[in-house]
Amino acid sequence: MESLNGLKRTHDCGTLNESYIGNDVVLMGWVLRRRDHGGVIFVDLRDREGITQVVFDPQIHEPSHEKAQRLRSEYCIAVKGRVRRRPEGMENPKLKTGFIEVAVNELRILNTSKTPPFPLDEEGAVSENLRLKYRYMDLRRPWMLEGLRLRHKVCQQMRSFLNNKGFIEVETPILTKSTPEGARDYLVPSRVNPGNFYALPQSPQLYKQILMIGGIERYYQIARCFRDEDLRADRQPEFTQLDLEMSFVEEEDVMGLMEGLISHLFSDCLGLELKTPFKRMTYDYAMDHYGTDRPDIRFNMEFVDITDVAKGCGLKVFKQAAESGGVVKVINAKGMAGLSRKELDDLTNFAIDLGAKGLAWVKIKDDGSWQSPIQKFFSDGEKAQIAERAGAEPGDCLFFGADQRDVVFKVLSEVRLRLGAMAGLIKDGQYSFVWITDFPLLEYDEDEGRLTSMHHPFTSPKEEDLDLLESDPLKVRSRAYDLVLNGVEIGGGSIRIHTKELQERLFKALSIGEEEAREKFGFLLEALEYGAPPHGGIAFGLDRLVMLMGGRESIRDVIAFPKTQKAQCLMTGAPSNVSMEQLAELYLRIIKEA
Amino acid sequence: MESLNGLKRTHDCGTLNESYIGNDVVLMGWVLRRRDHGGVIFVDLRDREGITQVVFDPQIHEPSHEKAQRLRSEYCIAVKGRVRRRPEGMENPKLKTGFIEVAVNELRILNTSKTPPFPLDEEGAVSENLRLKYRYMDLRRPWMLEGLRLRHKVCQQMRSFLNNKGFIEVETPILTKSTPEGARDYLVPSRVNPGNFYALPQSPQLYKQILMIGGIERYYQIARCFRDEDLRADRQPEFTQLDLEMSFVEEEDVMGLMEGLISHLFSDCLGLELKTPFKRMTYDYAMDHYGTDRPDIRFNMEFVDITDVAKGCGLKVFKQAAESGGVVKVINAKGMAGLSRKELDDLTNFAIDLGAKGLAWVKIKDDGSWQSPIQKFFSDGEKAQIAERAGAEPGDCLFFGADQRDVVFKVLSEVRLRLGAMAGLIKDGQYSFVWITDFPLLEYDEDEGRLTSMHHPFTSPKEEDLDLLESDPLKVRSRAYDLVLNGVEIGGGSIRIHTKELQERLFKALSIGEEEAREKFGFLLEALEYGAPPHGGIAFGLDRLVMLMGGRESIRDVIAFPKTQKAQCLMTGAPSNVSMEQLAELYLRIIKEA
Repeated sequence: MESLNGLKRTHDCGTLNESYIGNDVVLMGWVLRRRDHGGVIFVDLRDREGITQVVFDPQIHEPSHEKAQRLRSEYCIAVKGRVRRRPEGMENPKLKTGFIEVAVNELRILNTSKTPPFPLDEEGAVSENLRLKYRYMDLRRPWMLEGLRLRHKVCQQMRSFLNNKGFIEVETPILTKSTPEGARDYLVPSRVNPGNFYALPQSPQLYKQILMIGGIERYYQIARCFRDEDLRADRQPEFTQLDLEMSFVEEEDVMGLMEGLISHLFSDCLGLELKTPFKRMTYDYAMDHYGTDRPDIRFNMEFVDITDVAKGCGLKVFKQAAESGGVVKVINAKGMAGLSRKELDDLTNFAIDLGAKGLAWVKIKDDGSWQSPIQKFFSDGEKAQIAERAGAEPGDCLFFGADQRDVVFKVLSEVRLRLGAMAGLIKDGQYSFVWITDFPLLEYDEDEGRLTSMHHPFTSPKEEDLDLLESDPLKVRSRAYDLVLNGVEIGGGSIRIHTKELQERLFKALSIGEEEAREKFGFLLEALEYGAPPHGGIAFGLDRLVMLMGGRESIRDVIAFPKTQKAQCLMTGAPSNVSMEQLAELYLRIIKEA
Repeated sequence: MESLNGLKRTHDCGTLNESYIGNDVVLMGWVLRRRDHGGVIFVDLRDREGITQVVFDPQIHEPSHEKAQRLRSEYCIAVKGRVRRRPEGMENPKLKTGFIEVAVNELRILNTSKTPPFPLDEEGAVSENLRLKYRYMDLRRPWMLEGLRLRHKVCQQMRSFLNNKGFIEVETPILTKSTPEGARDYLVPSRVNPGNFYALPQSPQLYKQILMIGGIERYYQIARCFRDEDLRADRQPEFTQLDLEMSFVEEEDVMGLMEGLISHLFSDCLGLELKTPFKRMTYDYAMDHYGTDRPDIRFNMEFVDITDVAKGCGLKVFKQAAESGGVVKVINAKGMAGLSRKELDDLTNFAIDLGAKGLAWVKIKDDGSWQSPIQKFFSDGEKAQIAERAGAEPGDCLFFGADQRDVVFKVLSEVRLRLGAMAGLIKDGQYSFVWITDFPLLEYDEDEGRLTSMHHPFTSPKEEDLDLLESDPLKVRSRAYDLVLNGVEIGGGSIRIHTKELQERLFKALSIGEEEAREKFGFLLEALEYGAPPHGGIAFGLDRLVMLMGGRESIRDVIAFPKTQKAQCLMTGAPSNVSMEQLAELYLRIIKEA
């Protein structure tokens, strides 16, 4: 292997063009392809910025040509040479550098390479496990580099936008106090304080509130967060969020700021101009019309309620649902009456897998009449009522959900997404944002048999609902807001509780006893007694945002070193065994699995 | 407590001046001081940007005046009012807002406050433990906010400088593989992989090298790092470093880039223009002349070697040191012959505490003769030789160290700093940078009885010393460089090993067996086989850099939520007990202290 020994790169591999012809240059990079042709060796030299053709011609420099015969894919080399025009007919107009080549008069082989575990110049399907094990080879693929570059750019633009608005980036600790509430904490044993543990932060929530109490007024951080959850698809044990908090603000201030930020990011990083303000939708509306608090509003197909009509109809399953507190909803799939029997069966099975008893459908014929297995159970009047509400026209296909609310919402919301995809209504490069507001403050946790916070216990209730906190707590709405993009929640936040009295009242509503509250959150309660200002904020999932902006399928494609669903790093082998000495120093012993 | 209810702040408390007279404004902030004077209430309202005087005059708005009587220190309030000129003689020319006041016509008390645990408007000495416990109150002091703002600015300017140079910021994992080498790892038990542990990174060293192998070419990160060390003064279990790495570079490329960066930071954040290139000094020179590889070169007072002279002299302790492989060094404290007996005794005791047997001194009298307890042991010729080498002149005071090298270096380097301080040679606001180069690659670890890396095992040896790696390993110099500012190491880095052969050779020199190397660093060794480019980088301690730039005494003053020397957070109480359930899920049990 040869050394640089003072040799300096003069240009990258994406820069040289006809204006450099005649210049002497030094390029460094990797051998992407080597071709031998007419006694001359051609190498496509790749670096971060592009590809330049370099030529080893024995008539120009015999020793380099000789040495170039050893070159293989992914060898790392430096070449010195002169830029010249490619011979006529050999140009590659697809490349910026495609009209020139570099005739080499010095070659240094900086490093050799084994045969790559997968080809780097194809987008071809490589097993993800192989990509993760050889992440350094995967990262050499321009497509991966692009993802990291986009992430970099998004972060820098976030910072520049927020700096201009008077925000201060503050680092909060990674070694924090364990306050299990919500997800499971990752724990870190303390050696200096035996038997005690730090927790990795699930978010900097309490620190950012403390910063507001500390008078920072406008804080942000691109913060690493940790959740020890059973990993569902596309979750990572550690993830990154844009975390921010502001004092002396209300909901619209935070939402407005974020709209400005998101618009700035899309304009600067993607060249797309977004319309603001974004659409706003209450939680109740979203549930009633999309069956989810993360509606994909790139297309309509809203649910229409026909529970009242269903009460009188002859179809038992509709009637029962309507009469037992459930709901009957219909989706109108415009122009989809052409669906085949098989497609309808597939949709039905899909619905059944999601927990439905079936999936009733009606095709609207040219004369407006119904083609449907259930058509006989409806009077003409009922049919007319349903058709009118659903806006049904010839060629449409209606789908029905009839069950308890949560079942109908779950099933029809998924069926709607599937119909949207089948109808080609979900288009790449379309970005539809919607704010969801007026969430319930609390929800009933069946497992724990108690009320829990829908967001977190520091979320402020709406002032006008405060009286219900003890008498009818599930009716209390919160001052929370979520931002949804194309059906994916990318951010969420709230106005926080800023007085000790209300915070204690909320802990009580959550059945968190006084002692427990003091032990876990005593410092917050104490801090609230020292002139805490009104404040609120938001957190944005950076991984997901960049994934959506980059049109990627997985957050793993925009994370340099992601872990698998078993929370393992296939490259380094983390997590791994540690020595007995390391454990002994922590006063810990591993116990066998039960 | 009252709500904002749509009330919007129009200005901050540092903006209003005479050009706003007559304007209606809304301010929000904290009551710094309240004075009642002639039936009128004056409040100094403080927010992040400054202080504005607001006036509650019953003749302007009786209810506000009435309510203002309840105001106490640190109450959080909003006021609506009109800007007016202060009455003549009441101006405060020290404040930007000192010529106006706001006559209030609406007051909202957003939150009350208990009496602060310490006064916020004084720089007075408050116990640090109290400051850490009530960190939110400490942060309200402008002096603390300034520190966080400087840190913010330094980070943003680092990023903007590096972005312009083509660097990409990449996040590397916090949950990594444990490879104990150097300091102790913080461990994180894995629940999903029982009995296995992640480690928090001591630095992103291996990841950044992998990124270079992955073709990123220029990477940086403002990265959190973790070391479970016994905390000496001014160390934190987690700290932040600017971490960067470049491909296709050599020492001078990295050093030159960093000089540009540091100059940019000092110019932009402090308005100071630094001279570049910074001074360079080899490790050997630094040790021989300053006794340390972190020389404070704000003043001279370099060591002068007189070992050869001492060999022939009559002073036993000098002669012995010189003859048994030790050294005899002298410092010339210019113009300090006036030191009192007590000052000399204090210095001697200081030296003895550091491990010296004593501290010989010589005052040079007006006629050039010596005043010293040891003067009789030297011939006139020896005296002349010593005086000449030390550049001794009437009025100077010489100090001697005679012992084995490490003792002399340790003692005299500290004595030198003390003398520099006593002589007033160490001035605030003076910044003296020096690069230390040509470090030994290896050192002998007495405790472990083997060679260890002076920097880390990925540091490249100098090519010209390679032949010595097996035959005389302690003579091998490395391609490492440290940047020292005012005697504090603020950054260090190196050109790395980029071939598998050399890396394996180095592991061998470090007595790291093949199996151990494969288990710990197998992925790196494998990656080096795939065309790894030549690369090098550096890491800068952000906490220390900001501390020095801000003229602070402790890194804790530029960290929002630092921990104590016992690695505890006095505000939250971390680390703390966790529940049996949490431990059981991790298959861990706490064992009693031995």
